[in-house]
Amino acid sequence: MNPLVSVIMGSESDLPIMQAACNILNEFGIAHETRIVSAHRTPDEMRSLAINARARGIHVIIAGAGGAAHLPGMVASYTTLPVIGVPVKSTQSMEGWDSVLSIIQMPAGVPVATMALNNSKNAGILAAQILSLNNQAIQKQLEDYKKEMEKQVAEMNARLK
Amino acid sequence: MNPLVSVIMGSESDLPIMQAACNILNEFGIAHETRIVSAHRTPDEMRSLAINARARGIHVIIAGAGGAAHLPGMVASYTTLPVIGVPVKSTQSMEGWDSVLSIIQMPAGVPVATMALNNSKNAGILAAQILSLNNQAIQKQLEDYKKEMEKQVAEMNARLK
Amino acid sequence: MNPLVSVIMGSESDLPIMQAACNILNEFGIAHETRIVSAHRTPDEMRSLAINARARGIHVIIAGAGGAAHLPGMVASYTTLPVIGVPVKSTQSMEGWDSVLSIIQMPAGVPVATMALNNSKNAGILAAQILSLNNQAIQKQLEDYKKEMEKQVAEMNARLK
Amino acid sequence: MNPLVSVIMGSESDLPIMQAACNILNEFGIAHETRIVSAHRTPDEMRSLAINARARGIHVIIAGAGGAAHLPGMVASYTTLPVIGVPVKSTQSMEGWDSVLSIIQMPAGVPVATMALNNSKNAGILAAQILSLNNQAIQKQLEDYKKEMEKQVAEMNARLK
Amino acid sequence: MNPLVSVIMGSESDLPIMQAACNILNEFGIAHETRIVSAHRTPDEMRSLAINARARGIHVIIAGAGGAAHLPGMVASYTTLPVIGVPVKSTQSMEGWDSVLSIIQMPAGVPVATMALNNSKNAGILAAQILSLNNQAIQKQLEDYKKEMEKQVAEMNARLK
Amino acid sequence: MNPLVSVIMGSESDLPIMQAACNILNEFGIAHETRIVSAHRTPDEMRSLAINARARGIHVIIAGAGGAAHLPGMVASYTTLPVIGVPVKSTQSMEGWDSVLSIIQMPAGVPVATMALNNSKNAGILAAQILSLNNQAIQKQLEDYKKEMEKQVAEMNARLK
Amino acid sequence: MNPLVSVIMGSESDLPIMQAACNILNEFGIAHETRIVSAHRTPDEMRSLAINARARGIHVIIAGAGGAAHLPGMVASYTTLPVIGVPVKSTQSMEGWDSVLSIIQMPAGVPVATMALNNSKNAGILAAQILSLNNQAIQKQLEDYKKEMEKQVAEMNARLK
Amino acid sequence: MNPLVSVIMGSESDLPIMQAACNILNEFGIAHETRIVSAHRTPDEMRSLAINARARGIHVIIAGAGGAAHLPGMVASYTTLPVIGVPVKSTQSMEGWDSVLSIIQMPAGVPVATMALNNSKNAGILAAQILSLNNQAIQKQLEDYKKEMEKQVAEMNARLK
Repeated sequence: MNPLVSVIMGSESDLPIMQAACNILNEFGIAHETRIVSAHRTPDEMRSLAINARARGIHVIIAGAGGAAHLPGMVASYTTLPVIGVPVKSTQSMEGWDSVLSIIQMPAGVPVATMALNNSKNAGILAAQILSLNNQAIQKQLEDYKKEMEKQVAEMNARLK
Repeated sequence: MNPLVSVIMGSESDLPIMQAACNILNEFGIAHETRIVSAHRTPDEMRSLAINARARGIHVIIAGAGGAAHLPGMVASYTTLPVIGVPVKSTQSMEGWDSVLSIIQMPAGVPVATMALNNSKNAGILAAQILSLNNQAIQKQLEDYKKEMEKQVAEMNARLK
Repeated sequence: MNPLVSVIMGSESDLPIMQAACNILNEFGIAHETRIVSAHRTPDEMRSLAINARARGIHVIIAGAGGAAHLPGMVASYTTLPVIGVPVKSTQSMEGWDSVLSIIQMPAGVPVATMALNNSKNAGILAAQILSLNNQAIQKQLEDYKKEMEKQVAEMNARLK
Repeated sequence: MNPLVSVIMGSESDLPIMQAACNILNEFGIAHETRIVSAHRTPDEMRSLAINARARGIHVIIAGAGGAAHLPGMVASYTTLPVIGVPVKSTQSMEGWDSVLSIIQMPAGVPVATMALNNSKNAGILAAQILSLNNQAIQKQLEDYKKEMEKQVAEMNARLK
Repeated sequence: MNPLVSVIMGSESDLPIMQAACNILNEFGIAHETRIVSAHRTPDEMRSLAINARARGIHVIIAGAGGAAHLPGMVASYTTLPVIGVPVKSTQSMEGWDSVLSIIQMPAGVPVATMALNNSKNAGILAAQILSLNNQAIQKQLEDYKKEMEKQVAEMNARLK
Repeated sequence: MNPLVSVIMGSESDLPIMQAACNILNEFGIAHETRIVSAHRTPDEMRSLAINARARGIHVIIAGAGGAAHLPGMVASYTTLPVIGVPVKSTQSMEGWDSVLSIIQMPAGVPVATMALNNSKNAGILAAQILSLNNQAIQKQLEDYKKEMEKQVAEMNARLK
Repeated sequence: MNPLVSVIMGSESDLPIMQAACNILNEFGIAHETRIVSAHRTPDEMRSLAINARARGIHVIIAGAGGAAHLPGMVASYTTLPVIGVPVKSTQSMEGWDSVLSIIQMPAGVPVATMALNNSKNAGILAAQILSLNNQAIQKQLEDYKKEMEKQVAEMNARLK
Repeated sequence: MNPLVSVIMGSESDLPIMQAACNILNEFGIAHETRIVSAHRTPDEMRSLAINARARGIHVIIAGAGGAAHLPGMVASYTTLPVIGVPVKSTQSMEGWDSVLSIIQMPAGVPVATMALNNSKNAGILAAQILSLNNQAIQKQLEDYKKEMEKQVAEMNARLK
């Protein structure tokens, strides 16, 4: 099945964080690919991936990066697809402020949908929400997911008593 | 024409910032509505708007708010539509850090696609990118928009010489 | 005995921090309830709790939350009771700055009495101070509590020598 | 009429900010006093005020201060009354971070109910909420105030169209 | 021997940090006392200590505190002696920003000589520098101390090779 | 004369800040070019410029950018020339923290020599210092420049008296 | 009369801020000198001043600087006199955070008594406090100064009524 | 072989971080020296090193320091060589913000090429880039280094599948 979502990250070391996006896409049965693409080490591969994504049938790009996190913004500069950015708190980052600000503060004209620090799960869910606009099955799954979260809170309350 | 995008904000005072989102949607010919809905002053109107948005045909919600900016996140808790958050630097905010962090740091399960501080134009463009997935006209407009930006830089260079 | 204070939190994982509020209320013999209520996962339960609290005889609501901490502010938007907010430094938070700013920077009209990061004990004491305005027993206990703190410092000084 | 609320501040220069607390108390018909008391310039007057407040019939102390804002916390160390702190962004402050952190980060045992930066209006409302626990007239006023805010948003929406 | 320096701190838990000030004073043979005095838990003892210090022959007060660190500033409000403040990074502090800002941002008229976070050793050295103005033995010790630091760097260089 | 230094910036609006770099290069008689090249709006022009710079005889690239400032880092990913980054405090930036962190926090392997916020003059001087390593005239000019700065301070002192 | 205090600053542009230190010294009748000495532009003059200060009869050095403020710390590395640092918020600084952190975070062994941002008045007062240890006239003036501050607050209260 | 690069640091404790600069210089076969030189403990050795570096044949100085990191800037004030600064996150630093700001925020006239926090590897690479301007072998090595980084990403991708 052709991937609808491309999950990319700057380094293997981002995988433990970015895995949660893949997991949620798996859970929702959304076809996706996972690639290491570095804005700073493989800029041309990044460029190709971004330029060709739409033609390959990709609908959403999820990009995770830490430090001076240029990957999401540069991908966004090369495509008109929605790009979701996940700031990763790498060991060398300044408590994550660098990745958050490098991703979120994009100039007018080139948006990146920025998620919370390290929260790649939400990137997966946002991708599902975008795809749900033309896919009733995913819409249904999102509604079930909300109910499941509600149920978990109910269970926590039960445990509390 | 039924609105596809709902542009909401916590107060009239956010309008000068949020207008840019409406302008870009107008420019792209995307039907939208604009509403003042406050998480803290009209929580039930916010709730109704969020709960009914999908059924009303809304595809994307753009929510702008300043300070302890709860509007985007609370709307996201009530809908499975993609919600785009615009942190507004209000006069009483702490240089905008409060609105940025209140919007971006959503818990797992309830994403908000956060834009740069005061950058509601990008919210409009992201909405267009999302809608473009099933609308070739918008896709074409986005590509033209990118070319236009490129042309503007060329003109700047011409002026420089 | 009817609870006078409602101690709520967004998740089971906040309990280790919020327990200190319950402990101090127990110590002061103030009847209270403890509930998991999430602004983002169970917004309608949160709404019901907030709307009905006054009628149920609740006098003070203590709400703890981390990250984009919307629980205290949203509860405050639904009630005229005093709401005490406890910013929780969750593992995914940005060193607690997100929870502090999301709770404290409420707009004019809807206050949240914000405590120090993770300091739910002080939420319990503030609740007691509020209740003490019409309860001489609690007032006496607060005065004893101050004396006890004084005594502890005296003991520290004794140990020092 | 004996004051129920004592509105204090470190300097005359805080008055433009703190006036909003007085205004809201006036609007609600809550008797209050206004005093300049400085933790650093008149520590003994501050101490007397705090120690005697309860006996004088004061129910709530609202304290505003900027920079290394010690007034709210020191007053709280001398009384068992609820103390509401308003961080003031003075011209010499570090964008208000100093006043916010000096007020909010109180140690366990001595809470200060901290408001948003410069938001003394909310201090007035929180005082009203506390007093409302034993005063049905104020409770009614608070409910009307919420309705009034709702109405204002409705009017904004009307103007928008 | 009468103490010339009073080393005070808000809690026993600050002792591991404040010990370095005492050690350097011991090393320089400067008579000093160590006391737990809390601005928030024993405000009157703090007041007495500050008011009487000069008459007791104290020349310098070193005050360490964490969080909303009011001890150094309040002591300074009660004395005309030089007060040295040591911000302590306590477990509940916001990475130390709260203690640094609460100590350093004193208003005009009431200075606190603020040291680096947790750097009580420098408080001891500054006290020695102040005392050295009328004590040639201490002046000599300070010069030797500088030479010793120089020597340590020379030894590091030797080890490097 | 072939340019040795390429001064680039993301937008015309950065020119008032970046002009100081050009001025200092003019003052030192160092041939340079000035270009608007945007990482986000003209990524391919940026790429070409970076890839071809060395072959064109460029020795140093000075890149200024604001917000999520990707220009210096992306240029550095495409060249082995030294790249000097100037964080620009644009009107929409978060007090400049975004540009500073986006430029300085580059990952291992791809350095950007980061200057102080808005300090493009220093970028010009650093470029001169780099070129001076094989150019005695520039070395002499740099020494004269230091003497001139010294003289300016002497003149300030004269004015002071 | 030989100066007892040396007031130095990195540039003429710091004078409007540093003047308050001179004013307070004038008010207290403390002989002082004022000099422009730059750590970065006239490092050897700074070195000479620091090395010779004690022999010239200087008792306290007050050093003001902005940005990467190295002047106070470098002077402290060359003398055993007490050095008081005043962080100046220059137009190019990052809201003053750079000057505050560059001055306060000195390593163990070389203290700088750091004042609040722009608060050179307090540097003058601290110098007076240090000198008062062996000068009863200054001690008396400091006590009068405290009374004067108290009186000012009383006058503010009178105006308030 | 005469050293071309001088790698200096304020203390032995910076060596684990600064070693990466030496390693990369070794890898590129660039002759260098390593020295402990402290701005605050051995200011005159620092001065000598900086003043004499150019005459000794040094081309680039790499200086690492933590806290109030004055070493890179002071060295830059004494030399016209390019100085690369590496902010070190020492155990006592404020999460590295102090070292970053103390190094980067240099005043106009005295640049320091600032690297990411703890990223001394990049200091080594920037030194190589500067030297490469007149050394084709190093230029070749830098190009190979880029290819090697590219290859590493390719291998990560292979492992991913």
